[in-house]
Amino acid sequence: MIITVTLNAALDVTYRVPSLRPHTTHRVTHTAERPGGKGLNVARVLAALGHRSVVTGFVGGPVGEELRAGLAALDEPRLTDALLPIEGTTRRTIGVVDDRTGDTTMFNEPGPTISPREWAAFLAHYRGLLKGADAADSAERPAAVALCGSLPPGVPVGAYAELVREARGAGVFVLLDTSGEPLRRGLAARPDLIKPNADELTGLTGFSEPARAARDARRRGARAVAASLGADGMLAVTDEGAWQALPPARLAGNPTGAGDSAVAALLSGHAESLPWPQRLTRAIALSAATVAAPAAGEYDTGVYAELLTQVRVVAADGP
Amino acid sequence: MIITVTLNAALDVTYRVPSLRPHTTHRVTHTAERPGGKGLNVARVLAALGHRSVVTGFVGGPVGEELRAGLAALDEPRLTDALLPIEGTTRRTIGVVDDRTGDTTMFNEPGPTISPREWAAFLAHYRGLLKGADAADSAERPAAVALCGSLPPGVPVGAYAELVREARGAGVFVLLDTSGEPLRRGLAARPDLIKPNADELTGLTGFSEPARAARDARRRGARAVAASLGADGMLAVTDEGAWQALPPARLAGNPTGAGDSAVAALLSGHAESLPWPQRLTRAIALSAATVAAPAAGEYDTGVYAELLTQVRVVAADGP
Repeated sequence: MIITVTLNAALDVTYRVPSLRPHTTHRVTHTAERPGGKGLNVARVLAALGHRSVVTGFVGGPVGEELRAGLAALDEPRLTDALLPIEGTTRRTIGVVDDRTGDTTMFNEPGPTISPREWAAFLAHYRGLLKGADAADSAERPAAVALCGSLPPGVPVGAYAELVREARGAGVFVLLDTSGEPLRRGLAARPDLIKPNADELTGLTGFSEPARAARDARRRGARAVAASLGADGMLAVTDEGAWQALPPARLAGNPTGAGDSAVAALLSGHAESLPWPQRLTRAIALSAATVAAPAAGEYDTGVYAELLTQVRVVAADGP
Repeated sequence: MIITVTLNAALDVTYRVPSLRPHTTHRVTHTAERPGGKGLNVARVLAALGHRSVVTGFVGGPVGEELRAGLAALDEPRLTDALLPIEGTTRRTIGVVDDRTGDTTMFNEPGPTISPREWAAFLAHYRGLLKGADAADSAERPAAVALCGSLPPGVPVGAYAELVREARGAGVFVLLDTSGEPLRRGLAARPDLIKPNADELTGLTGFSEPARAARDARRRGARAVAASLGADGMLAVTDEGAWQALPPARLAGNPTGAGDSAVAALLSGHAESLPWPQRLTRAIALSAATVAAPAAGEYDTGVYAELLTQVRVVAADGP
């Protein structure tokens, strides 16, 4: 069982309009809604890979009810909803797809303000999950926990450092996937793995050369770094060695969720004790298969199976 | 008591963004939500004018619950919620305000699909309301009914004709405020009053000259026409005579809801048996006072009181 934490979950709403024209009125021709937020996408991919996952974070208000109903409608027995109810209302993201150009314009609500009491309640809830409290088989301890995405208003900026410490104290492998100050603070608590993209890695370390930046991120506290480098694939720098995985070709499609699928691949690879080169192969193939699918949290199984045989992994500069 | 019908009610959501840039991602800095739809705005203004009103139409799903909670939160004893629950989910409208320019970009969801069974249930519910079924004092019969706005998917295009006929059969004054084919069809059932704007009147009749178009609309079935002409005020052509009401000056502000306030003025004027020139004066003053207020369904009471003394009403070409 793997826990995914999404403190700022969202209901992702997609609108289609014939053509986006600022400062006019649009009749939306098609609407779609799905549970969103990085950790929820990760959990869906984990479930598709055959792993049990428990999603947690905050949920509240009528939008939160819609999100939970959407999770239940997935009818995925390997995915358990352990979101914690709050006073405020879960945020929405609105993506407006311009049918003329295919481009998307995003409007992301900030999210509900979390009270100190709610944050304290979440910590207690999270500690219980780390002990396997929500596992169907109560003897089952989590194989890993992933801390995903931005922090909602009210949550202390050092929140991820606290969640990393709790996981380490419970002896649970912890992956941190965030950016900016929450990432910087979280690193100090020494997570087992971070998965920044090139921009996040540069923002964190000041270095633009990925291998150098990854080594610097390890000095700052990350036990291992798996950096997603777009067309250059993924670079992992770990205690056991350093590797770069290269995709065979760039796929056209919707890149939303590709990073979440890479996180799911790395978590599943850890849970299955795969060697690092195989984890990276899975991450690259799964990311590309997500780009080929219509929505985050989904992937094209044909593309995935095909790419698993085509990803090339080479040794990189040592750790 | 006055009934307002809003078949395609909406939860109106407003987002503020620093600057709208198509095909980029925006962090929304402020969100606001309010119950929306023309008939709901009319009812709020009627309540503020001291008239009891009953709002009906369809409501459903989690967005519908938010809309009902918003109505209840108004804490307005003169406004009764008699919306009919449906299987589908009430629509949202999203207005994105660009803080740099002050302009708004609107995205209007189409609304839930109404099933034939739900439409039949609404007709029965509406007949009950026309008999005063939902009045606090069960002896109270409605003074008027207003049929407002667009039709949701699934409702027959002749729906307003049917609702007009029912009202006339029950001996209740009926005002129709819609456009396009629903207006054209509704006219055939001979509503007591329509309140088109200049574009709607031209679309209906093919005539761009308002007095000529209004006379033509009467030939098509409207017993009276009160056409809102923007800066030219309002033209009424009725059995009792024809008048034009002229605003003293154009007010800057948000025009959303100005038409709904004019409808509320005309309904209240009918309920109070005011002479037509006074009804028009109220309509112009209330519309302008709504433009001066921040949101539809609200008006600036100071501007309203001041304008009531400044609107000029002149006799127009005969009926």
